[in-house]
Formats: sequence, C-alpha cells, structure tokens
Amino acid sequence: MKSINIGLLGCGTVGTGVAKLLMGNKALLSARVGAELNLKWAADVDTEAERKITFAEGVFTTNARQVIDDPQVDIIVEMIGGQGIAMQLIQQAIENGKHVVTANKALLASRGNELFTAAARQGVDLAFEAAVGGCMPIIKTMRESLAGNHIQAMTGILNGTCNYILSRITDAGISFEAALAEAQQEGYAEADPTLDVEGFDAAHKTAILGALAYGMEINLNDVYIEGISSVTPLDIEFAGQFGYRIKLLAISKMTNGMVESRVHPTMIPRDNLLSNVNGTLNAITITGDAVGEIMLYGHGAGMMPTASAVISDIVDIARNLLCTAPRRVPPLAYQRNSIRKIPVLPMEELISNYYFRFSALDQPGVLSKISGILGEYNISIHYVHQKGRKTNGAVPVVMITHRVKEADVKQALAEIQNLKVVSKEPVLIRIEDAHME
Amino acid sequence: MKSINIGLLGCGTVGTGVAKLLMGNKALLSARVGAELNLKWAADVDTEAERKITFAEGVFTTNARQVIDDPQVDIIVEMIGGQGIAMQLIQQAIENGKHVVTANKALLASRGNELFTAAARQGVDLAFEAAVGGCMPIIKTMRESLAGNHIQAMTGILNGTCNYILSRITDAGISFEAALAEAQQEGYAEADPTLDVEGFDAAHKTAILGALAYGMEINLNDVYIEGISSVTPLDIEFAGQFGYRIKLLAISKMTNGMVESRVHPTMIPRDNLLSNVNGTLNAITITGDAVGEIMLYGHGAGMMPTASAVISDIVDIARNLLCTAPRRVPPLAYQRNSIRKIPVLPMEELISNYYFRFSALDQPGVLSKISGILGEYNISIHYVHQKGRKTNGAVPVVMITHRVKEADVKQALAEIQNLKVVSKEPVLIRIEDAHME
Repeated sequence: MKSINIGLLGCGTVGTGVAKLLMGNKALLSARVGAELNLKWAADVDTEAERKITFAEGVFTTNARQVIDDPQVDIIVEMIGGQGIAMQLIQQAIENGKHVVTANKALLASRGNELFTAAARQGVDLAFEAAVGGCMPIIKTMRESLAGNHIQAMTGILNGTCNYILSRITDAGISFEAALAEAQQEGYAEADPTLDVEGFDAAHKTAILGALAYGMEINLNDVYIEGISSVTPLDIEFAGQFGYRIKLLAISKMTNGMVESRVHPTMIPRDNLLSNVNGTLNAITITGDAVGEIMLYGHGAGMMPTASAVISDIVDIARNLLCTAPRRVPPLAYQRNSIRKIPVLPMEELISNYYFRFSALDQPGVLSKISGILGEYNISIHYVHQKGRKTNGAVPVVMITHRVKEADVKQALAEIQNLKVVSKEPVLIRIEDAHME
Repeated sequence: MKSINIGLLGCGTVGTGVAKLLMGNKALLSARVGAELNLKWAADVDTEAERKITFAEGVFTTNARQVIDDPQVDIIVEMIGGQGIAMQLIQQAIENGKHVVTANKALLASRGNELFTAAARQGVDLAFEAAVGGCMPIIKTMRESLAGNHIQAMTGILNGTCNYILSRITDAGISFEAALAEAQQEGYAEADPTLDVEGFDAAHKTAILGALAYGMEINLNDVYIEGISSVTPLDIEFAGQFGYRIKLLAISKMTNGMVESRVHPTMIPRDNLLSNVNGTLNAITITGDAVGEIMLYGHGAGMMPTASAVISDIVDIARNLLCTAPRRVPPLAYQRNSIRKIPVLPMEELISNYYFRFSALDQPGVLSKISGILGEYNISIHYVHQKGRKTNGAVPVVMITHRVKEADVKQALAEIQNLKVVSKEPVLIRIEDAHME
C-alpha cells in the first residue's frame, strides 16, 4: 500500500486532535483512501506538547524547518495559528512544492490572496476546510456541491464563543460581562476575547466565504463588523416579545451585482432554524438559484470536530496525489482567470429592517418628537412600544421599522440622540426577517 | 477551452432541471470547472419533452441507444427512473466506458452492487448525490468530509412526501387520508403513494447511506420498514403533550459491531432540530467519533434542487476527467477490498423507548391487567396517562417505556391485545430521545 507522508506543524489543541485521528483511525483512513496516511513529523516549539499524546519514535521535533524541508513529506498541516511564523512556514512549504492544509482563518483573510497565488504558481493545493465552521463541510459544499448554483446569500452563526454568550444572556437573563466570564471559565472564550466578541473572527470567515461564493479575491476590508459586547438582556427580552432572537450573524448577499458583507448582532424570527442553534454550535444557510436554501450545522470549534475537517482536507489531497491530480478543484472555487472584482455595497446603502431602543424621559410629546425626526428621513415604523416601567428615570421606547436605508437611519438617530428628552445613545439592531416589508 | 460532453437520458422533471442548469448556468460552470459542460444529447421517448425546454438544434433525440453509443459522450446522466430500461441503459453505458450519474435510489438500493461492480471493472465513475436527500450534499459529506470518522449513527428525514403529510396532520389535526389527498393535490405525492408513505423510498436511501457509512454492500433487506399510513392525529396530539413530534425517521446506527437500520414513525423531542424540519424539507444528522453531530438540511426533491445535486456529480466527474483521475473517490466511500459483511441487528433485539396506546374499556382493573403483562416481560414504564374522554366507548391508555427490548414489547402487546378489556390493536411508536433511559 502506498504511503502519504504528513508533516504536522503545531501540537496545540487542534494539532493534537489531527495527530490523534491520524493515529487512532489509521485503518479506517486506509480503507477509505487506499493508502496509508503516515504522520511522519509532529513539530512544536513546546516539548511538553509531546506529553499530550504519544508519538512513534522519531516523529516529534522542535524544528519546523526540518519538516518542511524533508523531501519525503507530501502534505504540511499548519496548526500553529497567528500571522507570523505560520505565514513564513506556509510560504516556504509552498515554495518547497508541498501541499498545505491550514485552519488559519485570520491569516487567510488578511494574506490569503498572496498564498493562493503562490500555491497556483507552484501547482500545489492549499486547503482550509477547518478555517470556517469547524466540522461543517461548508468549504467543500461551496466549492463542489453547489458548483451549479449562483450563490445568492449566506447567513451564518460562525463564532461559537459569541453564540454561547448570546445563548446564555437569552436563557439566563445575565449581562454580557457575566456571560463572557462564564464562557471564559468553560474554556469557550480566550482571556482576551476581542477577536471573538468584537466580530473579527466571524468577519475573517465571511471574507473567505464571500470569495468562494461569488468568485472574487478575499477582502476583509469589505466586511462591515460589529460585535456583541453592547447586546443587553433588555434588548434580548424585547426581541423575544416580537418573536425574535438575537444572534451574531455573518451575512453575505449578492444583490444587483453588488456584494453585501456584514457581521453584526441580528434579530431573526424564532422559527428560523438558526434561532435554534444554541451554545457553541455553528450553522449556516446558503441560498442558491437552483438549490433554494440549504443549511449545515455542527461544532464550529473544539479539538476533534476541527481535526475532522483538517483530516477531510488531508484525505482530499491524498486522493489527488494518488491519481496525480493536484489542484483538481481550484482552492477559491473558481478558476483563477475567472476571479473578478465585484463592487461592494457601502453600508450606508444597506436596505434593512431595524430595531431601535431609545431611552426617553417620561414626558408628553417625546414620542412625537422622535417619530417626527424618523418621518423626516422617510423611516416608516412598523411597530412602536413604549414600555411604562422606568429604567434610571427614563423609559425605553422601542420601534421596529419597515425596510429603510441605513444612511437615513444613522442620520435620524444622530438627530434623535441630540434631543434633550433622549438620555442615552439609541440602540440599533438590524433585523433579518423575510416576512417583513 | 476543453469540452466535456454530456448525454442526458430522460427529460422528466429532474432531467429538464439538469438541462436548464447546464444551459442557463453555462458560464458559471465553465468559470468553476475550467471546461465547457456541453449538453450534447437529451433523450426522451416522449417528444413532448422537447417543448418544456428549447434545446439547441440536434440535441433532442428519442433514441437513448444513440446517446450511450456516441463515442464523443463522456458522461451519461440517467434521469429515467424505474428499474427496467434505466438498468439496461446504465449497464450498457458502463460497458461503453461512460461515466454515469443517476438519482435512481430504487435501482441502486436493489441492484446497486451489480452496477458498482461493473463500474469498477470498467474504471468508470458511478455518481448518485441526487439519490439521497435531493440537494443536501449527504453523499459527498459521507464519502469525503467525514472520511476521518467512524460513523456511529445517522438519523434522517429523507422523504418529503411523508414529512409534508405528518406536518399537516400535526398542524391541522386532519387525518392521514385527508393530508395525503392534500399532498397529492399539491403535487407532493404520487397518485399511487405506496412507495413514499409505506416507507420504501426512505428505506432505499437508508440502505445506500448505510453502505457508505460503514463500508458494506447495499442490502435493502437489512432495513426494517414501517410507513406512516397508520399515524393518527390522536397519537400526534399525545406526542405533543409529552414534548414530542412524530416524524418518519430513517435511523441507522453502528452499535457493538452490529448495524441497526430502520425506517418508521418516530417520536422525537420537540427541541431536536429535526422536529423543526417541516413540510417537504429533508434533513439528516450524522454522528461520527470525531465530528460529534452534524446536520444537513434542504429540499429533498423538486426540479431545481435535485438538478443541483446532479450537476455537482457532473462537475465532480468533469474535474476527474480534466486531470485524468477517474474513480478518484470510491463510489461507496470505501476501497472495494475493504467492503465487508457487517452483522445486522435483528429488529427483535432492538433496545428502544416506546410509546403505546391501548384502547381500553372504561372499567376498574384494566390498567392493572395491562401493566401486569408488561411487568411480566420486564417492560418498565416511565409514564402512564389514562385519558378520561371516551373514544368509541373505549378510553385511550397511553404509556411511555424506559429502554426495553423490542421482542419483549411485541410479545407483551400480543398478550394485551387478547385481553377482553382491550378493544383494538395496540398502537406502538418508537421513541428516539437521548435523555431517556
């Protein structure tokens, strides 16, 4: 039986999971692939990594360069993360003619175009199923299963940390800070949670998916980003009263030849399947012109689910190697000469439904002042609710709009904020509800 | 640009959809594949098929033999259905060295092993993504994305007709017969609905998925089959009271080296994601040792969603052809020499939770007689409900069991049915609830 040699760089959580699967499910993998997937090297600067798992003699090394320079290695699996040494090692591996598997969404979102160009030049594969949605096969689905579809929209819960926090605020009525502390205690959030809770991680994934969906280069700057740190139990409670739940959604749409690409807290109807995706789980719906809507759901993180996605990339490349078919599928789903610039809808041009919450003094005429300004900006109100209960001397006035323009909303809200009867910065949460006009 | 020639056999609903996508999304497909996917032939015995879609001159033919004998044709797409002429044409196409795409689950479930053997001998691909779950990429996910996983279980809603009927009984409280009539009117059920409502179609799909999951031959006889024609609004109402919904589930599990494979109406908790898959939609959860649980969801039937899945197979084969990599992935997910016999758990050995409904005379001592017999067979009851309201002079006695053995259940129910105080055949519905012991 032929043998495919794998060099693993990085023995952290996911790297260890990959090694475990290669070793523990070796017979299964051979039965599926028809070749041995041989873990030839496992590299980590931290020699303690060796203790989490027992490698065969001579497999562990602290020298990553040795791994990427080994002429017998066919596939390099980069599980280091970050944009420093990981970038250098991937670049060198590609130069050395190795196929590369990575889960490094931050790197791909910011420097992916360079890497994909280098991989094309060298004729090697650069695979990244685990970079988006953990074990959900979203990259393969987009690149292969939906190949006959013009992708029209994607709506995803792509960050498990945020989904856990929002689920806890929803279920337990606790504050963002308390829910974050819980997530950190459970190991679902980093000590510095910025990358997750401010929406950057979801934005990296959105930038990657957008490229695959529409045939354009990856451009992180095209993604509008808003995190969940200002989501309150009060807004979640109001959302519930309107039949909505709040999720951090990654939304990407192709409308009239322009791409809409945004990550922000979003109200969605409770009977939407995504509303029922809770805890650290991820899910994504994809709309295509032929397929209608499909959904994928699964663990977006964690040692073994993420390792499963990495293994699927290794298997793909191994199958290519066995029939001498490198780059059988273009990494970004389209042939390189078909990748084009697609205009991005500026956020001010967005048309959406909105939820507003104003903290208004409990005085006569307040509602008329607020709604007067909204009217001036052609913001048509679907629903108003003025809650009687006082919060810090102010009452919440809650509104849901018809479909209106973001630029008008921003200007109206700036004016409303300047009203003397309005005591705090207004809260704005976008709504995705296909049944609303 | 290279051209891949496609010969389409059968211009019914799905065949027409395939032609529409090949023609309408031609530029998109070329941008993804790097070659032209050329619809060289579209064959149908019914010349009216020509009128549903305008083919380029010389494409339509009534002579399928001409298509499979054309040396320029690379891929034959069989969209005829049934097990007669479709089998002959696929066999001949394989003999002629053509790659074949089919959605014919009935044929694959009964004669797939022969066809896969023939395809292996001839070195051609035999692809069938559209045979299970319409546009959900379940075949590709099983064969490729989950390659590193031992599959432990699959639970699917795989028949849209049944799901529509059960959804209507649930939502409208109407009878099976009334819901079936509605489904027929809406075009969701055939004039003779047996194949769907008696569970055979879901069983065909279960047999195919089982082979892919565990590495065994397709064996339809291994699947236990029970349809939905005896599901009543009353049982759905009781299910709701216990927090359950009733779905026709395809269940396949690997437990202690034995395969469990069954299709039957099943109660599942309302907060299970599958409970919220309604109407004609399909969904499947797959549990693997690495991945945990993932779910796919989408349209299981319909012209364009099914055609999208067929196109994904055509694209896969085209990509193989372009880099001379036929049979890059083994059609049944495992190398042929790894496919083995796996013992099947006899249905009598099944351990499950059960729902029973007895129609009992409203007399003292009835419950004691019923529960006495259940006790003799070691059937431990989790919940009993004796509803006061009379139905045809009898009262429904409803029970939910702990995990017990099917053989014991069947024997106990046969004895209970013979009791003078029990007026009808007892109703038995299996429960899948991970939280129940």
